[in-house]
Amino acid sequence: MADIDPQPQLEELPGGLTAPAGWLAGGVYTGIRSYGPEPRFDLGLLLSERPATAAALFTRNAVVGAPVTLTRERVARGAARALVVNSGNSNVATGAAGDADAERMAELAAAALGVAAADVLVASTGVIGRRLPMDRIEAGIGEIELTREGGAQFARAMMTTDTRPKEQALRVEAGGRSYIVGGAAKGAGMIHPDMATMFGFLTTDAPVERGWLQETLREVTDRSFNMIDVDMDTSTSDMVIALANGAAGGEPIAAGHPAAAPLASAIEAVAVRLARELARDGEGARTLIEVVAEGAASDADARIAARTISASPLVKTMITGRDPNWGRVLMAAGRSGAALDLERTEVWIGEFCAFAQGAPTATPEADISAAMDRDEVQIRIDLGCGEASATAWGCDLTEEYVRINADYTT
Amino acid sequence: MADIDPQPQLEELPGGLTAPAGWLAGGVYTGIRSYGPEPRFDLGLLLSERPATAAALFTRNAVVGAPVTLTRERVARGAARALVVNSGNSNVATGAAGDADAERMAELAAAALGVAAADVLVASTGVIGRRLPMDRIEAGIGEIELTREGGAQFARAMMTTDTRPKEQALRVEAGGRSYIVGGAAKGAGMIHPDMATMFGFLTTDAPVERGWLQETLREVTDRSFNMIDVDMDTSTSDMVIALANGAAGGEPIAAGHPAAAPLASAIEAVAVRLARELARDGEGARTLIEVVAEGAASDADARIAARTISASPLVKTMITGRDPNWGRVLMAAGRSGAALDLERTEVWIGEFCAFAQGAPTATPEADISAAMDRDEVQIRIDLGCGEASATAWGCDLTEEYVRINADYTT
Repeated sequence: MADIDPQPQLEELPGGLTAPAGWLAGGVYTGIRSYGPEPRFDLGLLLSERPATAAALFTRNAVVGAPVTLTRERVARGAARALVVNSGNSNVATGAAGDADAERMAELAAAALGVAAADVLVASTGVIGRRLPMDRIEAGIGEIELTREGGAQFARAMMTTDTRPKEQALRVEAGGRSYIVGGAAKGAGMIHPDMATMFGFLTTDAPVERGWLQETLREVTDRSFNMIDVDMDTSTSDMVIALANGAAGGEPIAAGHPAAAPLASAIEAVAVRLARELARDGEGARTLIEVVAEGAASDADARIAARTISASPLVKTMITGRDPNWGRVLMAAGRSGAALDLERTEVWIGEFCAFAQGAPTATPEADISAAMDRDEVQIRIDLGCGEASATAWGCDLTEEYVRINADYTT
Repeated sequence: MADIDPQPQLEELPGGLTAPAGWLAGGVYTGIRSYGPEPRFDLGLLLSERPATAAALFTRNAVVGAPVTLTRERVARGAARALVVNSGNSNVATGAAGDADAERMAELAAAALGVAAADVLVASTGVIGRRLPMDRIEAGIGEIELTREGGAQFARAMMTTDTRPKEQALRVEAGGRSYIVGGAAKGAGMIHPDMATMFGFLTTDAPVERGWLQETLREVTDRSFNMIDVDMDTSTSDMVIALANGAAGGEPIAAGHPAAAPLASAIEAVAVRLARELARDGEGARTLIEVVAEGAASDADARIAARTISASPLVKTMITGRDPNWGRVLMAAGRSGAALDLERTEVWIGEFCAFAQGAPTATPEADISAAMDRDEVQIRIDLGCGEASATAWGCDLTEEYVRINADYTT
């Protein structure tokens, strides 16, 4: 496990993917996204002024889209220059024609950007089983204007049912230099680890050694994007990509480098902030739910307990209704597979302990209800078995979620 | 695996648990169920006129209610005379006091029925973390009138958010005799295998050998109650109990007995009918979804694929909205862990094939929408890998589900 500095000095910056030096981006509306509320950006380009070290994680779904196959192959080569993204169509289950469309999309982007097609990564999200409207992509891609502020357009271009773009940027002082880490994410915060496409893209101007970047990205993702309900394991299109172009100068950062821990902390902080925003913007959501599982026998137990609770529809609807039915938390933990010592288990809703020493506490139900009536609700469970802990994020489940998903394509 | 006759001669009968000979039941309203729409039965008794062979399966949740602990111990002794059930309070997470309450409930039932307390099984469903109102149980239990038609009252007494009781009874001719199998079930058909308590109770007047009954119950449950979204693995209170009192006469039925296969088929048929009713009455549901996974590499793959599809909130909302977004079926299969050969995979909605040979078919979306606009929708996927198949049942996810669960206790 890479060292992650627990107390890095991080400075918040405006912007996202184009906040680090040497990054440009932009977006355009082409009409790929033929459904939805109103015309908005649906095609975006991200460009590094110099080759960037690339690391990525992809969905583990047995069915993957053509862009996943293409981008996985290209990231394996270790470097990239650009990323083209679209929403409205995921180019999944489209057969050999879909593979050709993804290739063509990279070629069109390469031509527009003046780079080699092999250096362009592709990410698509949206409806499954329909061919991409290549004519619209071809017509629109040349109209994209790349700017230093274009990260915001790019973040919008990949939105599906997101109600707002998600961008973050942080500056970190590390090893005597200053680096910036930027990021953007999209995802609909489905009510259950399912097939909602989640994109998490991270850029930095730090120079990095590729193996270190890949390992850091894996660890960071396990504590951020993998701990929200939009589960990258399960969509056909999910990707988390980190691109480091070294524009800030210095020697490549790898394990043991004095900047490694602070930079990793900055990457994690950007990823966690984006993950929380994804959960908060879950389809139809009104409340961000943070679940802390502690006292677990192992990290794996802590993770599965926190995730099971945060993904439980009954826990979600408990929060929706501000219903002091905390037994649902206990039950979700019980079915998670994590070891649990009931006599030592404690369940907390906000600052109130609802269950301890094997029985309900005397906390009035009205207090527990009131603790749920907030924009952010923390649920905490101590499993009474050890020292491990983990944090997961989710959102409440509202009638609006059902409305959104019952009318997705129509 | 016990032989299950694929073509048994089954005759539908009215009634449920008290349809077989030698079974009596009744119910009463006591006020245990202090929430909900209107006063209705919340305490029920089921009695066999003679000792009944008992077999059961219980939740595998790490947290179980006091009634589960008590009933598990008593069923392990192999026989029982009676079952007392209540809704409105599950007696879970209530500590040592809850254990004593469950014991006391059995004693009160035993006194009312004139049997030994050790011969009484207990089942409770409802809110977690609250003490049972023992005074109400004590006051009400003596008022229950046991009759041969009382199975209907018993079935009502265990309802929580069910909108209607679920009863089934079948007569089977087997080995030159006639046996009746009856059953009742309750369960809220949650949108995801979670903690909704599911009870499935089966009675028969056949004489059976206990080991055979337990093995048959396990197999039957794997093809019925375990294939709906109310997952008995995960609630704190779930139970499936089979009781056979032998009132119809004859030698005990065990493996190899000529009546074994037809009787097992009748037990399975009752269980599957009850399971389908549970799914159809899922909270807020308007549509029963039957998912058939075939062409699987193994039974385990077929089961997990069918269950993952039927439990997917995105598949459910697809049906809710009659939205021809069949890619969600493919995706749920992809994340299920089942082996899948995409080039050979087929996805069918009702009688229409939506995906085959690695690409969408030419079936018009309007046809697929129309195929979803029914009280029962069949989704079929061929995984293209083998010969195994499995069937799962679920229901659509509606805004009403959210309303029900956001206001459960309040």
